[in-house]
Amino acid sequence: MLTLARPTLLLDKDKCLKNITRIVEKANRFNVRLRPHFKTHQSHEIGRWFRVQGVDSCTVSSLQMAEYFARDGWKDITVAFPLNYLEADLINRLASQLKLNLCVTAQGTLSHLKDKLNHPVHIYIEIDTGYHRTGIDPKDDKSISNLFSEIASSPNFVFEGFLSHAGHSYKCKTRNHIQHVHDEEVNQMVALREKYKNQFPQLQLSIGDTPSASLCENFYGIDEMRPGNLVFYDLTQFHIGSCKLDQIAVALTCPVVATYPERNEIVIYGGGVHFSKDALIEENGKPVYGYVVRLKEGGWVLPPTSMRIQSLSQEHGIIYAPDGEASSVKPGEVLGVLPVHSCLTADAMGEYLSLDGEKIARFS
Amino acid sequence: MLTLARPTLLLDKDKCLKNITRIVEKANRFNVRLRPHFKTHQSHEIGRWFRVQGVDSCTVSSLQMAEYFARDGWKDITVAFPLNYLEADLINRLASQLKLNLCVTAQGTLSHLKDKLNHPVHIYIEIDTGYHRTGIDPKDDKSISNLFSEIASSPNFVFEGFLSHAGHSYKCKTRNHIQHVHDEEVNQMVALREKYKNQFPQLQLSIGDTPSASLCENFYGIDEMRPGNLVFYDLTQFHIGSCKLDQIAVALTCPVVATYPERNEIVIYGGGVHFSKDALIEENGKPVYGYVVRLKEGGWVLPPTSMRIQSLSQEHGIIYAPDGEASSVKPGEVLGVLPVHSCLTADAMGEYLSLDGEKIARFS
Repeated sequence: MLTLARPTLLLDKDKCLKNITRIVEKANRFNVRLRPHFKTHQSHEIGRWFRVQGVDSCTVSSLQMAEYFARDGWKDITVAFPLNYLEADLINRLASQLKLNLCVTAQGTLSHLKDKLNHPVHIYIEIDTGYHRTGIDPKDDKSISNLFSEIASSPNFVFEGFLSHAGHSYKCKTRNHIQHVHDEEVNQMVALREKYKNQFPQLQLSIGDTPSASLCENFYGIDEMRPGNLVFYDLTQFHIGSCKLDQIAVALTCPVVATYPERNEIVIYGGGVHFSKDALIEENGKPVYGYVVRLKEGGWVLPPTSMRIQSLSQEHGIIYAPDGEASSVKPGEVLGVLPVHSCLTADAMGEYLSLDGEKIARFS
Repeated sequence: MLTLARPTLLLDKDKCLKNITRIVEKANRFNVRLRPHFKTHQSHEIGRWFRVQGVDSCTVSSLQMAEYFARDGWKDITVAFPLNYLEADLINRLASQLKLNLCVTAQGTLSHLKDKLNHPVHIYIEIDTGYHRTGIDPKDDKSISNLFSEIASSPNFVFEGFLSHAGHSYKCKTRNHIQHVHDEEVNQMVALREKYKNQFPQLQLSIGDTPSASLCENFYGIDEMRPGNLVFYDLTQFHIGSCKLDQIAVALTCPVVATYPERNEIVIYGGGVHFSKDALIEENGKPVYGYVVRLKEGGWVLPPTSMRIQSLSQEHGIIYAPDGEASSVKPGEVLGVLPVHSCLTADAMGEYLSLDGEKIARFS
């Protein structure tokens, strides 16, 4: 395990496959198409783990990521990011190869794209169901109508339906709160279908976030879900109740480089460039950048230790190690860390290492 | 300028060269060796900009980064990170090619390295002058003496001296406070030399942080400085008074993808995977992830606009755009952003684009 000499992102394939199977079965049970968001893992190989379970469409967060998955044979890809018409060349190239679904939220962007397009693209109108990041207010008939007109202005624009992302579910603290966010989203989306179904009988409704996909059971009227994070989960999802600790499928291994028992601290090789810098705020009001786990043959030990990463600089991580833990570890030992936000940690690291030592490449 | 269709890290070479020249001249004036920290730029080409000004040694934060700069002919490299003896193979390989300076802070790590080493390495003992991240208390004679014994135990260990990093200067709010941190560091380091100079007449004292290198004038008794961030500077340095806004040499360009004048917001293509997620906390208590600047032919306009990045998700940045600014921008326009922490932003981006369109590669 030579690479453990440096920060290494371990992937527990069994846990990951279970996470995939669980959501595939759930989507089947509710007769909802699963179009998983691949921005979390960004890996051909992990994409194939979905494919063998019958998934044939995916979501990405950039056109370059779409291009990466197109190279592995994905033929139906949604770019769940507001249309950036400056990338018209790449849009055109992708549209010539596959069913490319784009999201529009801003008026005028389709008009800018129109003249540069030689192949059809499929258009979702993004709806803001309460997250207030991007998307159109579902009651804003005028903006929706304007976008319909833009879509109708070119035979290369094919209207698919409405797409939303209830990202505010990530800030929920209880299961009831997540359920409420989800119910609101479903109700708003279904109302849109009612309003426009005569005009567009094939209209699709696509929603997507890991908390509601993990916890909620009402998908009536919804055609598609796009959860991403649940392929790995992380401490953020654990804290809002979307997963259990034994469902988290990745851990970053970090060599210990110094210990300071007198101040209950351990310093590891593993910093902001490895974890990224998303933090959880725990009950004491202090930020936590990861839970420390002990490694064992073939994985890591649960429950986690009482050790927490309390700060990160570029390459260093500072672990708060109470209860004598700082004396129990020596420089040269390797600890595992469950990440706060697995999407960003996976993005920061170049590849995965499976528990049986196989390197798994990812887009970068 | 096709690449501006996506988030792109612009580098103003003139500003960067001025930053380099200023510190080279300052180091010469105080007769201190400049061993710049290259973890900020991580680029062969930018390293050469130092070299042509007479700099022939550098600092890095990992052995892999040392290997990268060794490939470009650097023959005297300090790895300013606690010795990780798990990487003995790479240490040995580098030590066969160049003068490799390592930092020790933990007892026992040299003993673990000893038997695997066939080439001499140069050893600095890291001193904690108040930052309390890593390093040995300068008054802890026993630990220092133990490390001397470990160093003496192999002819492949060559003691160089003491090294410190006053990282707590980054948390200072005033110039006086930075001066105080720097004075304390210099005093503690010079006292160490006094204590050990008979035993080690050639003992070197190496210090390094951008705030004190930028602002302070007392380096008497210090042999070497290792500032890194000042090659680019950033908003963090601006806020603590280390630089002016016109010395910040990098800006991330981001296409606008949506505007929401009714809530004073603009959404850009540019998120946590581009900026990293370090934030400044401004006087109103809210986090800021970047100041927005308008782009112009050959650079960006100063002073910055009143627009600030107020939150980041994986690929999206949300700009707070008061005073009607949100109506002044349209999707498809490109804005610039001065980053909060240029080291992490440069690490997240794969390359630089100079203002005359030249791509400048970096280690990744």
